[in-house]
Amino acid sequence: MRAVSVTGTGMTRFGRQGDTLKSLALAACREALRTAGHPRIGAVYAGNFLGGQLAGQEIIGSILAKELGLGPIPAVKMEGACASGGIAFRQAYLMIAAGVYDTALVVGVEKMTHAAASIVTEALNSAMDNDSSEGMSGLTFPGFFGVVANRYMHEFGAGREHLSMVALKNRSYAQHNPHAQFRKPATLDEIQQARLITDPLGLYHCSPITDGAAAVVIAAGAGGIRVLASGQASGPPLMQDIPDLLTIEAIRQAAQQAYAQAGAGPEDIDVAEVHDCFAMTELLAVEDLGFFAKGTAWQAIEAGKLQHGGEIPVNTSGGLLSRGHPIGATGVAQIVQIAKQLQGQAVNQVEGARLGLAQNLGGTGAYATVHIFGK
Amino acid sequence: MRAVSVTGTGMTRFGRQGDTLKSLALAACREALRTAGHPRIGAVYAGNFLGGQLAGQEIIGSILAKELGLGPIPAVKMEGACASGGIAFRQAYLMIAAGVYDTALVVGVEKMTHAAASIVTEALNSAMDNDSSEGMSGLTFPGFFGVVANRYMHEFGAGREHLSMVALKNRSYAQHNPHAQFRKPATLDEIQQARLITDPLGLYHCSPITDGAAAVVIAAGAGGIRVLASGQASGPPLMQDIPDLLTIEAIRQAAQQAYAQAGAGPEDIDVAEVHDCFAMTELLAVEDLGFFAKGTAWQAIEAGKLQHGGEIPVNTSGGLLSRGHPIGATGVAQIVQIAKQLQGQAVNQVEGARLGLAQNLGGTGAYATVHIFGK
Repeated sequence: MRAVSVTGTGMTRFGRQGDTLKSLALAACREALRTAGHPRIGAVYAGNFLGGQLAGQEIIGSILAKELGLGPIPAVKMEGACASGGIAFRQAYLMIAAGVYDTALVVGVEKMTHAAASIVTEALNSAMDNDSSEGMSGLTFPGFFGVVANRYMHEFGAGREHLSMVALKNRSYAQHNPHAQFRKPATLDEIQQARLITDPLGLYHCSPITDGAAAVVIAAGAGGIRVLASGQASGPPLMQDIPDLLTIEAIRQAAQQAYAQAGAGPEDIDVAEVHDCFAMTELLAVEDLGFFAKGTAWQAIEAGKLQHGGEIPVNTSGGLLSRGHPIGATGVAQIVQIAKQLQGQAVNQVEGARLGLAQNLGGTGAYATVHIFGK
Repeated sequence: MRAVSVTGTGMTRFGRQGDTLKSLALAACREALRTAGHPRIGAVYAGNFLGGQLAGQEIIGSILAKELGLGPIPAVKMEGACASGGIAFRQAYLMIAAGVYDTALVVGVEKMTHAAASIVTEALNSAMDNDSSEGMSGLTFPGFFGVVANRYMHEFGAGREHLSMVALKNRSYAQHNPHAQFRKPATLDEIQQARLITDPLGLYHCSPITDGAAAVVIAAGAGGIRVLASGQASGPPLMQDIPDLLTIEAIRQAAQQAYAQAGAGPEDIDVAEVHDCFAMTELLAVEDLGFFAKGTAWQAIEAGKLQHGGEIPVNTSGGLLSRGHPIGATGVAQIVQIAKQLQGQAVNQVEGARLGLAQNLGGTGAYATVHIFGK
């Protein structure tokens, strides 16, 4: 397998925007191509989840190849719910590592804010196995992660305030990120008092509906931020099939693959972006990635271990909670932030960061990807 | 690149069915796994286009990995409109050829008949670039290929009866295919007299709305039907950007790639499945694949050159026109038919077939894949 590097990055501001799915993706791609020095591109991999359902727009790969003037190169859209971006990146990475293509443009994009919340919620539920009673029973994503949060607090002695500390940290980081959806400061008290979405998850504990796009150019060779490893795993798409609600097995499996490939462990990672679709999910993720022992992440957030000066700064972009969560774009945006951290040019720069990790989740654990990068 | 073979095939009957998207896909996968001898599977690649829009169901890759008991292996859905199946196959093939995985399960699936025709038409139009005036102007897919057919007849002297001869040939083949949607015989006169959909395309000149799934297992090594080549190209997703309406450039480009990789030319192919979403499209495809010179396919169909005893039997499964066109399944079903032809076990077996070709199209030429197989 050949060395592969991230050689260019781009992203739009995340949040409510008037642009179309196409124009958002184009803006991110153009920035990525420009920062990569306009190389010849071998293939386009687009990560997108809801283009058909919310925008009536598929074939985004082909549309981008045409609009960007890349020629008749192969293009495709990858769908893996909220992990669509991470999966698209992985496919492109493997193709370059294996020598099929020399360069690829990877873009994640979603346009969500133009639709009513009820329509978005219904569309998001297509990320569950609907040939079951769970969706009909009202088990939306906030419902699922609310159940998990209650169980976590019951098992490990955490309080709702620990979920709020995650939200506060990520909001604090987002204040410095011009691409973030929510830059207005919030206090722990405001977060604790905000209206409930699903008990115990309040407004600040849930990622928002967002528009946005992120893109990277990757290429064979060691001339950029190195992609050291790629892991991907699947897990049960139904809550009733999950043996332990407090472990997202797909994250563990994908992380094991990635650590083995990189020849590194969680203790070697200097900065991470993890999939905080809900504040609860960040606590599970940092445990399942091996940064903290199972059942202890709530103590770690309380002790400041997930931020600058602590053991590992997590979601320095603001995370899904405050940077925003345009579904298909999220996995690529995480990689943009890690690449910038390793370039020494990130918002909330972690001084001297040499190894970074990006973890993307799909559904309630149906998919996970873990990528490790080095400078 | 390693040798790669198709080691198992499966498909459901195509047509109106009561099953869900999941149950259709599972049935095809189980047959493919069984005929492959139940190997350990490294990854799942699902081709699907309308699962989100028509069935509210995404994450089909993960669902299949779970339901089939394949373990926490990587899975993904690929979307490339009507070329989704061909693209999913290509990605899986390249991953195995490059040594990333040793085996993969590729499945294409679509569930369409439960939705009203107007809803299906609207969903299908997400395979056009909607950031344009074309969709609003009523340029649906029958509209587009109707324009092309009129132009073809004007330029080359073909008549509507030549479109009908394509439909008749494919209906005749479908009579012998127990998986086909339309097995009832039709005469040239019936085809000519059937109600118009878009002038000059009548009912029999247009592929139907269909449910169905097809699957293949592919593996490293030469122990099955060999995958000799894979080509994929993109083309303009808008009619206004197509320089020559009578050439589908993405087919030409993908074919050139595939012929070069296989070290073979169109004259070496013994049997082909081509993307006859409309009767017109088959005539363009056999020209753009190089089987016949541009502007002469109408003479070839009249002379019987596209069927048994002619130069190259095309769409011996019945094609999209009569076997049916469950969008995401089509590209994989074509490969199932070619694999069976090379195994000597196909419906409408072409005696002594040694090289076969499958060509899948997305949108109005936004994507094309061409795969070549050998025994």
